[in-house]
Amino acid sequence: MSEAQERLHHSHLERAREQIIGLLTRQAVERDLVSRSEVSKQDVVAQLLARQQQAALATKLGQLHPADIAFILEALPPDVRETAWGLVKPERRGAVLLETNEAVLRALLGDMRPEEIAAVVRHLDSDDIAELLSEMEEDARQAVLAKLDRDDQAEVRSVLSFPDGSVGSMMDLDFLSIREDTSLEAVLRLLRRQKQLPAEINQLIVVDRAGHLRGVLSLDQLLLSDPEQTVHTVMTAEPTFFYTGDAVDDAVTAFEKYDLISAPVVNLHKQVVGRIPVDAVVDAIKARAQSESLRQVGLSGEEDLFAPVVESAKNRWPWLALNLLTAFIASRVIGAFEGIIVQLVALAALMPIVASIGGNTGNQTVALVIRGLALNQLGPTQLRKMFSKEFGIATINGALWGSVLGVATLALYHQWALALVIAVSVLLNLWVAAAAGVLIPLTLQRFGRDPVMGSSVLLTAFTDSMGFFIFLALAAVFLV
Amino acid sequence: MSEAQERLHHSHLERAREQIIGLLTRQAVERDLVSRSEVSKQDVVAQLLARQQQAALATKLGQLHPADIAFILEALPPDVRETAWGLVKPERRGAVLLETNEAVLRALLGDMRPEEIAAVVRHLDSDDIAELLSEMEEDARQAVLAKLDRDDQAEVRSVLSFPDGSVGSMMDLDFLSIREDTSLEAVLRLLRRQKQLPAEINQLIVVDRAGHLRGVLSLDQLLLSDPEQTVHTVMTAEPTFFYTGDAVDDAVTAFEKYDLISAPVVNLHKQVVGRIPVDAVVDAIKARAQSESLRQVGLSGEEDLFAPVVESAKNRWPWLALNLLTAFIASRVIGAFEGIIVQLVALAALMPIVASIGGNTGNQTVALVIRGLALNQLGPTQLRKMFSKEFGIATINGALWGSVLGVATLALYHQWALALVIAVSVLLNLWVAAAAGVLIPLTLQRFGRDPVMGSSVLLTAFTDSMGFFIFLALAAVFLV
Repeated sequence: MSEAQERLHHSHLERAREQIIGLLTRQAVERDLVSRSEVSKQDVVAQLLARQQQAALATKLGQLHPADIAFILEALPPDVRETAWGLVKPERRGAVLLETNEAVLRALLGDMRPEEIAAVVRHLDSDDIAELLSEMEEDARQAVLAKLDRDDQAEVRSVLSFPDGSVGSMMDLDFLSIREDTSLEAVLRLLRRQKQLPAEINQLIVVDRAGHLRGVLSLDQLLLSDPEQTVHTVMTAEPTFFYTGDAVDDAVTAFEKYDLISAPVVNLHKQVVGRIPVDAVVDAIKARAQSESLRQVGLSGEEDLFAPVVESAKNRWPWLALNLLTAFIASRVIGAFEGIIVQLVALAALMPIVASIGGNTGNQTVALVIRGLALNQLGPTQLRKMFSKEFGIATINGALWGSVLGVATLALYHQWALALVIAVSVLLNLWVAAAAGVLIPLTLQRFGRDPVMGSSVLLTAFTDSMGFFIFLALAAVFLV
Repeated sequence: MSEAQERLHHSHLERAREQIIGLLTRQAVERDLVSRSEVSKQDVVAQLLARQQQAALATKLGQLHPADIAFILEALPPDVRETAWGLVKPERRGAVLLETNEAVLRALLGDMRPEEIAAVVRHLDSDDIAELLSEMEEDARQAVLAKLDRDDQAEVRSVLSFPDGSVGSMMDLDFLSIREDTSLEAVLRLLRRQKQLPAEINQLIVVDRAGHLRGVLSLDQLLLSDPEQTVHTVMTAEPTFFYTGDAVDDAVTAFEKYDLISAPVVNLHKQVVGRIPVDAVVDAIKARAQSESLRQVGLSGEEDLFAPVVESAKNRWPWLALNLLTAFIASRVIGAFEGIIVQLVALAALMPIVASIGGNTGNQTVALVIRGLALNQLGPTQLRKMFSKEFGIATINGALWGSVLGVATLALYHQWALALVIAVSVLLNLWVAAAAGVLIPLTLQRFGRDPVMGSSVLLTAFTDSMGFFIFLALAAVFLV
């Protein structure tokens, strides 16, 4: 076993990665030299050198865990990534692909022919094959499916038929089931006949003749109990289980709360069709966490750090366009008050303060609401409570910091009325921010949208326009 | 086992929660009526009613999993929460506290006397006691510690001595260790003598006479192998393990990557002192994920949805003050150009667009960098690559959307020079946003700060000031 696998601390892995990247980059430079210059003795040496390094690299990669290889691939620029991918042994490529993030996975799969992909995934379980294929375009997916063994094809198709985000789409198909009238002794003998148990198994699933879920028998119950007893007497008769149609998020919540390690998955007839292992749950939590802060600023959850610039630029267009539009609206709000600004130019300097404070405090409220929604803590009662609380906070902070700003304005411009107008504007815009901060994520969710997606962009649009409007309108009424 | 435990879907739990909240709220109203009016026959009935409901509630709570009770407590307003907490059986309170979030936990512990807390936690493992005590003030903690059994005291103190965020502070102290020259048969006998295994155990830890880690024996290896063999021949000799001083984040990463279920923890002499179970890792990931989007907007990771308004308002002061200060600086930037704004008031209306686009795109870059840092994907090579990529994106989007804005400006104000100035300003401010978006989280991290904390507030401060400056300065040079 490799050093990296023995001690998994960042420092180690970091060093291995930097080494590999160093080797790869040097190689790229040398290959570049070879291709640019005339073929000469020196180039042959360079080529030999490059080949030696390739061998060293292949060995190094061979010692790493598939997850570590995936980690390194994700961190490499595309050209060097190609080289590194070529050095991974074909029989390990499937396992590496499983650990790779969506963007890099698509890049790697995009460069392979259907036969190649089929050859690579053949070593995997059918649920894992389905997971990989679900990232591909329909045409490419069918092409790969056609190259698989008949049995695999059927299983993969059945997993693919479950919608994204459902328990069915994340479950493992391999589980061990036993009957409840068996003796533990017999179960132990049965296990010893297996070469290997499915990964992360901590329980056997107890089913009746027709495959209906009857209970689970954990390995420690099995080990601790008298072998003479039957499964029925020691099993857990009412285990936590999921239907294939349940939401992955619900399963994640249950695993978090009840400290589960695996749970059976059943179809509508309550027949066991698979199980969820805890590592799939860990991956789901991780993916959700990673994507959240990206989605809040209007980026899709997965973005390849090294995707082509033009592609990444395009990804940002929809929200940029929306941002430009809302900023333009805010600008027209100001435009409507141009006459007043000319009379009192201090307004132009002061108005962004009102907008900015609203934006920042509103984003705090948005973050709290999104967390509340994610934790399912916002029922109708809590919502009313939260609404009035955020208004209370806005009132205190608006009064306090509005006054501070009023004093600063007075010191700077020596105008009592102006100071009063800005102080009141801050208070009013904090109320707007509190309301918008609660309502924007809720409204997005109410209309079946992701409450996180772009919520911060939308909030700012609102607090900007309203901030300018409140301040300039008050100024128009009381100052000019 | 209760219905709620049998099927853990939100709908069920939701209903239970709403029921309980309904009961509790009605109760609160009735209690209120009783206390306000004169004692009369009607009040006695109301009181009786309230008592009956209390019994119903206590039964209901008794059927729920501790995690579900915690979930309900978190969602309740403080006064009603008190009532519900009083109905939880004393021997289950420790388990409930363990599942409660930091803010609510502090509220509950704050209302209890040291003897009460000691009585409640006595049923827990010492690492769990330490976890709870770590949330308390030093004085209160010592008072509770003094009330515990001598053995518990020593163990709790040893766990408390590990710094927050270290593996030592999150580990479980109870594990099963065996010697490598034992036969599997003997191990099986040993296990059968135990009444219960530590929770979520999937492996036995193999140590030498002095307690040094030699390997691990997974339960499935134990079950699948011939009982005549020795532990040495079937164990995993180089398992993933952690030092007490390792960072929790590193352990989390290792669990995610290598699909671990538990791992031994050793001291500096490589003697086994505990283990990390996967459920602790799941909790750590969840806590990290929940706090991230809050920290980005300058809120502390844990905020009680129903903490008193004044307290919550105060929590937001430091960042509000910073926000006010930076907004004021931006305002002074504008103030420096007041003369020009008076001459061309369109500038006042257009300048927030430049600032707003910079803020939103900069926040996208911040989100990407923070994710890269969290995944440890940003080595020096990747950083350079990312920097140039973000500049590339800024260039494309700046040129494109700057032109769009230029055209809109031209249509509105019929001034070619003004249109050109705003187009160029957008491009320049997107460059500023790209640079600030990469540098702000990196700088925070370089100086040992949390790269997430307030990054979005800082970024906006930068892009606002620079946006105003670039636009107004260009206008001053080319337009007036």
